[in-house]
Amino acid sequence: MYYFDIQEYKDRIQKTKRRMEAEDIDVLFISQPANMNYLTGYDGWSFYVHQGIIISLGQDEPIWIGRGMDASGARLTTFLKEENILSYSDDYVQSKTKHPMQVVADIIKKKGWREKNIAVEMDQFYFTHRCYVELEKALPEARFKDGNILVNMVRMIKSDKEIEFMKKAGKIAEKVMETGIDAVNVGVRECDAAAKISYAQIKGTEEYGGDYPAIVPLMMAGEGTSTPHLTWSDRKFQENEAVLLELSGVYKHYHAPIARTIYLGTPPKLMKETAEIVMDGLNKTLAFIKPGINCEEIEAKWRDAISHSTVVKESRLGYSIGLNYPPDWGEQTVSLRPGDKTVLKPNMAFHIIPGIWYKEVGFEVDASIRITEKGYESLYDFPIELFIKK
Amino acid sequence: MYYFDIQEYKDRIQKTKRRMEAEDIDVLFISQPANMNYLTGYDGWSFYVHQGIIISLGQDEPIWIGRGMDASGARLTTFLKEENILSYSDDYVQSKTKHPMQVVADIIKKKGWREKNIAVEMDQFYFTHRCYVELEKALPEARFKDGNILVNMVRMIKSDKEIEFMKKAGKIAEKVMETGIDAVNVGVRECDAAAKISYAQIKGTEEYGGDYPAIVPLMMAGEGTSTPHLTWSDRKFQENEAVLLELSGVYKHYHAPIARTIYLGTPPKLMKETAEIVMDGLNKTLAFIKPGINCEEIEAKWRDAISHSTVVKESRLGYSIGLNYPPDWGEQTVSLRPGDKTVLKPNMAFHIIPGIWYKEVGFEVDASIRITEKGYESLYDFPIELFIKK
Repeated sequence: MYYFDIQEYKDRIQKTKRRMEAEDIDVLFISQPANMNYLTGYDGWSFYVHQGIIISLGQDEPIWIGRGMDASGARLTTFLKEENILSYSDDYVQSKTKHPMQVVADIIKKKGWREKNIAVEMDQFYFTHRCYVELEKALPEARFKDGNILVNMVRMIKSDKEIEFMKKAGKIAEKVMETGIDAVNVGVRECDAAAKISYAQIKGTEEYGGDYPAIVPLMMAGEGTSTPHLTWSDRKFQENEAVLLELSGVYKHYHAPIARTIYLGTPPKLMKETAEIVMDGLNKTLAFIKPGINCEEIEAKWRDAISHSTVVKESRLGYSIGLNYPPDWGEQTVSLRPGDKTVLKPNMAFHIIPGIWYKEVGFEVDASIRITEKGYESLYDFPIELFIKK
Repeated sequence: MYYFDIQEYKDRIQKTKRRMEAEDIDVLFISQPANMNYLTGYDGWSFYVHQGIIISLGQDEPIWIGRGMDASGARLTTFLKEENILSYSDDYVQSKTKHPMQVVADIIKKKGWREKNIAVEMDQFYFTHRCYVELEKALPEARFKDGNILVNMVRMIKSDKEIEFMKKAGKIAEKVMETGIDAVNVGVRECDAAAKISYAQIKGTEEYGGDYPAIVPLMMAGEGTSTPHLTWSDRKFQENEAVLLELSGVYKHYHAPIARTIYLGTPPKLMKETAEIVMDGLNKTLAFIKPGINCEEIEAKWRDAISHSTVVKESRLGYSIGLNYPPDWGEQTVSLRPGDKTVLKPNMAFHIIPGIWYKEVGFEVDASIRITEKGYESLYDFPIELFIKK
């Protein structure tokens, strides 16, 4: 059930190993779900218990380690040989005395890697402090290193097949946002609109199905537009309020986030002006994007484009996107903001979201793009505008 | 936008402080989203960046600390005074040089708590190893302790209002499973059935809306029934295959998980027999449940009830449930399994799921219950049976 040729997984593993060599890492333990999927195909909602894969310079294939009942899931969704699918018994789950990392350490010892330079993902969710403590205790001769975004960095430049997946996600994103704009009306409960949006996300198109997003539909209405990360309630949409939708199309865990703003009524002057400044700024920023420029230059372009106005955006303008699992569709690698000098290369992908969440006015619009040989292309075709519903 | 009386939050904080005193903890830093919500009302999909609350014996109210743009979300969803809503600037987000825990440490210092016994959630997702490293580095005089499931344990016994929320989740669960059983048919794409299920989850009932589940719809069909945590694809359901659905009704983040099995065709002997043994075992186990018995006794009862058969279940039979956010609707506190001597008390709630995921046959059925004064009651009314669709 993995979705790429085995050769593509092998290439990814090779790229990971080259980075490991460069950073003097012999053994890498990965528990970030997207990184696990990226290197092995593993796909299951089992990341609520400890699990991971070990990549070692001394072994071709990664080793998958998880809960006993999920080992069959690894057999079904990865290309790994049976000998590389290992598991721990159920009494290690949420135990007060045992911990799954003790089993991981035992495997590392059995493989003869106890004295190696072992890297773990020190600031990724799903690798808790206790995970580190247990590994360190069981492997006193190892030297631990930080492999925090090592695989995330490999993921930054997509293969053509990954871009194809993201474009499928983009097609789904178009349907999802259409559904959202159609569903948001005065007197409708927020949950009823969110239900329709989620239906559209998962159904996908007639040709290919959708997947669950790494971030559920975000929906900010009325006074909620002063902040970006709220979800729905059973409150009803009111006349003369803005509704911000931040959604995504998703295809096999690849994302094409899409954000737009709806106004239910005649937008007040501040709303209209803010929307125009932000949309104009976004368009000018997009026109500037091509390989060879760097992340902070994009943000500087945006800041310059809105400098004539009173709009100020203190948060980052965007970030790298691709394959992901909850809680984040961002790759947590590079950001469009001052200080990030990462140079754009073809097949990188970004979510550019100049969101404004003032107390007086909130507005969101975005673009999900991939860098091409000469410029960029959008993952979806959806108008950049303020959607006014009277 | 918080859903309980302020007094209920204050009671929860008091209970937390009493546990802190008992464990010689002065200051507790919490980043588990359900724990944050439980103590302050905070509700937002912002847990993909570092955030948390500080509870100190030296201060009445908790302090919320998160990303600047989410502080407005804290203003909208918590009962906290403005002075207790603090934030870090956006350049701390996924930075290579800065870390949000440096800001948390600064606040602890400013409050004069630098030499205190400070507990953190050492094995909860969302508190990474790096979080610990940064706090330890910035607070060299503190003594760090493990407060891993301290608040989770407070959550175990629900208030009557929480039980009311869980019963609403149970009503939604009935609709969700009805929708699922109705949608799963030969020739239907898995994603189309999952879309309808998700729609039902979020729409809820006409009286109250649904919420997003901490675990997306799990759907195992055909050979997938050998493992429990798969999600859908655009594969079509086939004739003569079993389909396992593990879903949940959710009301304001309170869960009532529901799992049932569908057979598309005439179930073979092994399927029918396994289903009958498991359902009989579940019914006998349920009949035994009342306050005063302990968790391992429930599991022993189950094991005894199926001992005449060839069915063997190595994994835990169930676990405590309630309020939760992704990735888990379980409270990660107590489990129904050998060695867990936690005594049942009224208003505890459990998900009992005797799932069987053999290579040859898979079957799931469950009960979500709360303990009453004299026994238990189910959170929903749904037949315990194998649903056969010909």
